[in-house]
Amino acid sequence: MAINELFGQELRAVNLGNAGFAAELEGLGVQVTHLDWEPPGRGQVELIAALEQLSHRPDIDAANKEAFDRYASSIPLLVDIGRAVDVIPGMTLDTILHAGPPLTWGRMSGPMRGAIIGALLYEGRAATPEEAEALAASGAITFSPCHEHGAVGPMAGIIAPSMPVFIIHNQTHGNDSYCTLNEGLGKVLRYGAYSSEVIDRLKWMENVLAPGLKKALSLAGGIDLRALIAQALHMGDELHNRNKAATSLFIRNIAPYLVQAGLPDAELAEILKFINSNDHFFLNLSMPACKAMLDAAHGVKGSTMVTTMARNGTEFGIRVSGLADRWFTAPALMVKGLYFPGYSEADANPDIGDSAITETGGIGGFAMAAAIAIVQFVGGAPRDALAYTTRMYEITLKENPSFSIPILDFRGTPSGVDVRKVIESNILPQINTGIAHREPGVGQVGAGLVNPPWDCFAGAVLALADVYGRNCRSMGI
Amino acid sequence: MAINELFGQELRAVNLGNAGFAAELEGLGVQVTHLDWEPPGRGQVELIAALEQLSHRPDIDAANKEAFDRYASSIPLLVDIGRAVDVIPGMTLDTILHAGPPLTWGRMSGPMRGAIIGALLYEGRAATPEEAEALAASGAITFSPCHEHGAVGPMAGIIAPSMPVFIIHNQTHGNDSYCTLNEGLGKVLRYGAYSSEVIDRLKWMENVLAPGLKKALSLAGGIDLRALIAQALHMGDELHNRNKAATSLFIRNIAPYLVQAGLPDAELAEILKFINSNDHFFLNLSMPACKAMLDAAHGVKGSTMVTTMARNGTEFGIRVSGLADRWFTAPALMVKGLYFPGYSEADANPDIGDSAITETGGIGGFAMAAAIAIVQFVGGAPRDALAYTTRMYEITLKENPSFSIPILDFRGTPSGVDVRKVIESNILPQINTGIAHREPGVGQVGAGLVNPPWDCFAGAVLALADVYGRNCRSMGI
Repeated sequence: MAINELFGQELRAVNLGNAGFAAELEGLGVQVTHLDWEPPGRGQVELIAALEQLSHRPDIDAANKEAFDRYASSIPLLVDIGRAVDVIPGMTLDTILHAGPPLTWGRMSGPMRGAIIGALLYEGRAATPEEAEALAASGAITFSPCHEHGAVGPMAGIIAPSMPVFIIHNQTHGNDSYCTLNEGLGKVLRYGAYSSEVIDRLKWMENVLAPGLKKALSLAGGIDLRALIAQALHMGDELHNRNKAATSLFIRNIAPYLVQAGLPDAELAEILKFINSNDHFFLNLSMPACKAMLDAAHGVKGSTMVTTMARNGTEFGIRVSGLADRWFTAPALMVKGLYFPGYSEADANPDIGDSAITETGGIGGFAMAAAIAIVQFVGGAPRDALAYTTRMYEITLKENPSFSIPILDFRGTPSGVDVRKVIESNILPQINTGIAHREPGVGQVGAGLVNPPWDCFAGAVLALADVYGRNCRSMGI
Repeated sequence: MAINELFGQELRAVNLGNAGFAAELEGLGVQVTHLDWEPPGRGQVELIAALEQLSHRPDIDAANKEAFDRYASSIPLLVDIGRAVDVIPGMTLDTILHAGPPLTWGRMSGPMRGAIIGALLYEGRAATPEEAEALAASGAITFSPCHEHGAVGPMAGIIAPSMPVFIIHNQTHGNDSYCTLNEGLGKVLRYGAYSSEVIDRLKWMENVLAPGLKKALSLAGGIDLRALIAQALHMGDELHNRNKAATSLFIRNIAPYLVQAGLPDAELAEILKFINSNDHFFLNLSMPACKAMLDAAHGVKGSTMVTTMARNGTEFGIRVSGLADRWFTAPALMVKGLYFPGYSEADANPDIGDSAITETGGIGGFAMAAAIAIVQFVGGAPRDALAYTTRMYEITLKENPSFSIPILDFRGTPSGVDVRKVIESNILPQINTGIAHREPGVGQVGAGLVNPPWDCFAGAVLALADVYGRNCRSMGI
């Protein structure tokens, strides 16, 4: 078409971004197609400059390749169970580990406080909830993030010194990770419940479940969690809020060894029934599996790959491979989802837990296309589950070659969030998660979908430009 | 557009059916779109007349509603294990049941003969394969279809008198069904293998596996197979060639009771390892579950619903609810699929086994959209798996309200094949299946996709018109 023909035609406009312009044209009778669009970095000049410092950088690409390869080549093996204080680095009898970024008692949410009260009762450090609160507030207890000790925990994520923890060994890179054993549903410590039923169950887990599983694991000789996750992704799990297949596979694998372990029959039956009663049992294995894989990718100079996304119920925090142990935090958001009967968003605590390590590891919300049935639990339609996964390819480095999604033609899961891509595209990681009641002692009230706060990623991009920007080549990456 | 404008336009033709017409027009330079299409009944006048006799018939629709409702309301419970000759109606010590429609020794395929040789060795009726062949050919053994005794069997489907069988009770309608226990992979009787390794395994199953499971089942008090199938469909199984999730769920459910059964530890561990080693273990439960549901729907006067599709390795046979125990048979077709290394279609036996009871029951090939990962085993791409299921809605009566497929917006599986719809549309039921070697004693050589012969359905439509056609209202339906 010649340019002078253009003006003879009917005017049709495409409007990007600001919807106000589209409305004005429509008011003038012009046909307008409006597209949602935001400029990179939400148009913030400082961020656009930082992105420019970090883009077209073969050195950063090489660092990301190394970080991704370390993650993707990791084989996390479940090798043993141990007592937290005996096996977790830096843990003492006065330490309690918690989910998410660092946090003081005074700023803790209800479920986090409830879980700490429960942990102190469980440890025999207090006889009543009031005594436990006083001890927690006294400064005698050190609160420290699980993530800074090679550990992870769902929801409140409390690890007390006497608790048994799974030990996962990264066969490829040698690092270990840790996680408590999943307590089941209903009133449980990780949602901030601390009644005697909760404490009694934790004691049974310490005295019966953990020793039994420990014996079985010694006979099994290490269970390849990456292989179980890969199979479960072909069986409708995404390994964050749907772990039904993986839990089933775990039972299949461990049951013969539990039998060989020579436990009393009554204990053996109790253990099998306990695991069988809880489709989320494997969550406490998918989480430390991802943690072991991502810790191997952490600390690569120049890498913009996210190695931690975690929430403490008050703040959301991320860490980036190339920025060592710096946390980038912002207030945790509310989860949009489905509530159990009798509850609503008014009862909900903000987003909480280390379980976003699954999304960081390329599963969970990133693999919802593998787990269509999960929409019955977290809300939405099957096409939404496909869309969540598809969108995540835009902000990740690569596809995980071990984790494939049948319905997407066996494409690997989108893995390795690149903070640069998040800020360039303004697409935030997709997390699905349980919802805790905001008061201590109640428990889970629903499940749904949430994103991290954008500010975490903006902060990380600014810090990366500061350390690794074009003008800082002296940093030697 | 006015009709007289039509002739002023360029000629564009749409050609239906006969591709020769399209080629001729293309030769004249006319733009042609060719659509595959066949007239109902492949254009056979006799069939079109029969269909006309059976269409727009509220009485037949009511009969089909009753048959479908009896199928869909069935709750098949796994209640017990028994010795075949003690529990299967009409079984004697000289009876061997086999897959598919009736068949004489002289017309049996290699794997069917191999399995019968194995069964006679297993029963101690012969000391060598030669003796067994002579006995089989002597007329002293009665060969009878499993399906005529409330039973089903995968591949050769042999049930010998001493074999232990699962007993499934239809809680809703009171009928029972039966199936042997799955032997695992490799050299197994159901694929026609009969070496000592095969016979020894069957003896172990009779003496250790079956008694152990029987004790556990008596403690478990009946396992709802419909519920397990429904869950497995949300976990990537279609319950014919993919039973990995259902097998896992079965282990989870039975393991605590196996422990409580007080078996010797070594036997208990052997049993758990045996079931765990075989992802097809649940096939021998999904099949009799479907059989129990479909037998309840059988024998409804006027119903055009298919209640049996089964193959004996020589012929394919179907039965229809409204036509009592008449078989409609035609030569079995070859399976198109993926072969194990070292094998090709030249090694394959024609389609064999009662396992098409799963497709008859609305799962298996009809539910492949629930089991996308199966294409790695039977061939094709994910979109093919979706298409197979979608196409089956065109030839079925309704959706099964208990069996839903997440990726199809939780739509129920297409269930209850209507022979009228098959012949009207010329769309054949989609079956996926294992492939047996054509020689006795070898075993499985691959897996793939197959359809029943069209003639089975054509024959059934003619018979239905004969019995229930408009002119035969005196039949009293």
